[in-house]
Amino acid sequence: MDADIGLIGLGVMGANLALNIAEKGHRIAVFNRTTSKTHAFVEAAGDLADRIVPCETLEELAAAIRPPRPVIIMVQAGDAVDDQIAALRPVLAANDIIIDAGNANFHDTRRRFGELADSGLTFIGMGVSGGAEGARHGPSIMVGGTQESYDRVSDVLTAISAKFEGTPCCAYLGSDGAGHFVKTIHNGIEYGDMQMIAEIYGVFRDGMGLQAAQIAPYFAAWNQGPLESYLIEISAAVLDATDPETGSPMVDMILDRAGQKGTGRWSAIEAQTLGIPATTIEAAVSARALSSMKDERLAAAGVYAHGPEPVALGDALVADLEQALIAAKIAAYAQGFAVLSAASDEYGWDLPMSTIAEVWREGCIIRSRFLNAMSQAFAADPTPENLLVAPEFAKLMKEALPALRRTVALGATSGLPMPALSAALAYVNQYTQGRGTANLLQAQRDFFGEHGFERIDREGGGFHGPWVQGAG
Amino acid sequence: MDADIGLIGLGVMGANLALNIAEKGHRIAVFNRTTSKTHAFVEAAGDLADRIVPCETLEELAAAIRPPRPVIIMVQAGDAVDDQIAALRPVLAANDIIIDAGNANFHDTRRRFGELADSGLTFIGMGVSGGAEGARHGPSIMVGGTQESYDRVSDVLTAISAKFEGTPCCAYLGSDGAGHFVKTIHNGIEYGDMQMIAEIYGVFRDGMGLQAAQIAPYFAAWNQGPLESYLIEISAAVLDATDPETGSPMVDMILDRAGQKGTGRWSAIEAQTLGIPATTIEAAVSARALSSMKDERLAAAGVYAHGPEPVALGDALVADLEQALIAAKIAAYAQGFAVLSAASDEYGWDLPMSTIAEVWREGCIIRSRFLNAMSQAFAADPTPENLLVAPEFAKLMKEALPALRRTVALGATSGLPMPALSAALAYVNQYTQGRGTANLLQAQRDFFGEHGFERIDREGGGFHGPWVQGAG
Repeated sequence: MDADIGLIGLGVMGANLALNIAEKGHRIAVFNRTTSKTHAFVEAAGDLADRIVPCETLEELAAAIRPPRPVIIMVQAGDAVDDQIAALRPVLAANDIIIDAGNANFHDTRRRFGELADSGLTFIGMGVSGGAEGARHGPSIMVGGTQESYDRVSDVLTAISAKFEGTPCCAYLGSDGAGHFVKTIHNGIEYGDMQMIAEIYGVFRDGMGLQAAQIAPYFAAWNQGPLESYLIEISAAVLDATDPETGSPMVDMILDRAGQKGTGRWSAIEAQTLGIPATTIEAAVSARALSSMKDERLAAAGVYAHGPEPVALGDALVADLEQALIAAKIAAYAQGFAVLSAASDEYGWDLPMSTIAEVWREGCIIRSRFLNAMSQAFAADPTPENLLVAPEFAKLMKEALPALRRTVALGATSGLPMPALSAALAYVNQYTQGRGTANLLQAQRDFFGEHGFERIDREGGGFHGPWVQGAG
Repeated sequence: MDADIGLIGLGVMGANLALNIAEKGHRIAVFNRTTSKTHAFVEAAGDLADRIVPCETLEELAAAIRPPRPVIIMVQAGDAVDDQIAALRPVLAANDIIIDAGNANFHDTRRRFGELADSGLTFIGMGVSGGAEGARHGPSIMVGGTQESYDRVSDVLTAISAKFEGTPCCAYLGSDGAGHFVKTIHNGIEYGDMQMIAEIYGVFRDGMGLQAAQIAPYFAAWNQGPLESYLIEISAAVLDATDPETGSPMVDMILDRAGQKGTGRWSAIEAQTLGIPATTIEAAVSARALSSMKDERLAAAGVYAHGPEPVALGDALVADLEQALIAAKIAAYAQGFAVLSAASDEYGWDLPMSTIAEVWREGCIIRSRFLNAMSQAFAADPTPENLLVAPEFAKLMKEALPALRRTVALGATSGLPMPALSAALAYVNQYTQGRGTANLLQAQRDFFGEHGFERIDREGGGFHGPWVQGAG
């Protein structure tokens, strides 16, 4: 009964998180449904094994932890979490804390938080980003639940989290599903970042005809500038890698069919549900869906039989591609933060935008130099209307926007797919247009459905055009 | 007890539908919560009044209809429908049919269908499109429920529906929520059509600096060609209309803030839920959301202070804009039908694609010359992989695609927002690309999360790159 914390589920993420916790000096009791896996895990833990208590039953697990007990669940998101909570409840006691560290849908987290609220147990929904490596050596941690329950586990969580210049990338963000929601939008932004990089890669590969190893240095160079980020860094790394089996560039041997685990799609669905434009993220999610339709695409390619037009490599174009990524990235983040803001209002979370940008500065997949600037922008103005008008980012956007315009135009004329980049450009164009073209939509709607419209010269609504009988 | 059918809810749509039914020779019993409205309706019905039975209670309504009774409900979608059904049940008898003709969410329709299935009553979820005018003189009608219940009301429904060269634009489409789902996607496509027209209008207005009345003739001319459709026709009409109050072009006096009633958003959410790319529809829904953020846009316009660049008017450009609309429209419909196809599989509806295109040929808002060609394409091949590869549309697309490329490029360089048009282009580019760039996404995912990938040279999945320890 002397472990500080427990953990259930020794898959890649759970095992790495447990090792991370042990390494930071905490005693941890672990349990896996398959007992042999538990023992194999401890055996492989080396020096850390003496801080790990293997448990063969949940009763043993509960007995091994000092009350009040924090227990991390790291199992497959979905029903398995509910099953695990149900199995845990009989062995836990009042004030114990169940922490779901998986990629739960925040609606489930809200439900579970409510279900446990009357039981004496407390529930924390915790978003963890950083992949396998992050879990092992320092992830970004986004916590939802009660402030009180967070305070009771914050020493462990901040110890294992990534640090940005000494500051833990771990924070309490709001009630019930706040942590998992923020993680969901993090992943939506991640989809956007990745897709935009892939579109630029397409310009190099299909427009300029460069080989993977020739493309890698551009990303490596960009990683020394404003685009410095984990995803740009690993893009350079994977483009530079050779397939040990064939000696070909590794990326050329990989099928162009991308998987997805649901969080990107959830981002798109929640944005639509909240009525917040997140077209760059939606385009990225849809791009993965289109990638998975490989057979259809091959058939369509046969029917259309047109490849992209060649594009001439040149310093100006390369500089444009970098600036285009900067502009589009700002637009994608503006969308993501706008969704967070709307959800914060909808669910009463009072999300701390600056803190969110801070916990994303290290450890997580979208970590980047940009996020430090974003945390500062939100610190200066916690509720800007939109990141696009935060002074620092408006300045960057104005500088980079012409390059995004030229890049999207190049993609359009050359037949290079740019779903996310063009959605980002359209978003900026629409958002910064004081007088749009929706007056025509309103005229059409009034014409066919007598929906009424507002006028530019009078207060109120419900006006009709002369096409409606009795109006005018 | 001699009415053929009943109708509850005498708003614009309900009243027009009732007059339409009476006009076609059917006796109809009507009820409205506010009794005075019921009597006012009959008084205003003129010659048709002798076929209309005003009822002050639901008991009267039931007594006025010949069993088995069909009763149309046309009330606000949502809880009001459930309330109305609950109020109706005690006065109805076995084999009576409740027909919800509102814009219900198909999930609700599925639930209601299930709830009534054991009661002896039958439920029909019926999508009605055509606006006020369509309801009065011939809407497009999309029916979901049981074939048996449809057969019992098909004479009334086909009588009141629009006709395309004599064929009623009314059909049974599938079980439970099929009719309301098809109506939802109809509306999603409608959002797309309208937004793309608005983007082209923006080129004329903001790029070329034309006045509304100067723009109208272009749409009028296009309405004589392949784009012939109700929405193009009314675009010309509203652009040509003068505001009686100010003498200015009517559209110039209308605020550029568009409303929406949910069905467009539902289309986007269902597409994402099904994993089907519908980015043009999503962009159109988001464009309305952005239009509604008028104050934010005005503020952002002040910060950015850039208007669109001028565009030179010329015959070649006008021809491009027409062709661009053709290409983008095909892409938007391809997305819509792909969503229908996926939903048909998901919910076991066995949706008849050719019939859906047929019932959209007249009466509904998206009626167009194109839809006849689509119904023929689906008749020739009921389950093409995608409309983009149906021979007739592949041919049209190949002809029109260069113009869409040039138009999107023009929008990009000029700063004219083209969210839906550029999403359509990206969709075509992605769908027709045999080898995409998702191999880079897979490499990144394997790098940071050990997700594994498929290879182009071997069967199976779960391969790792040399960046994963122990791989290779």
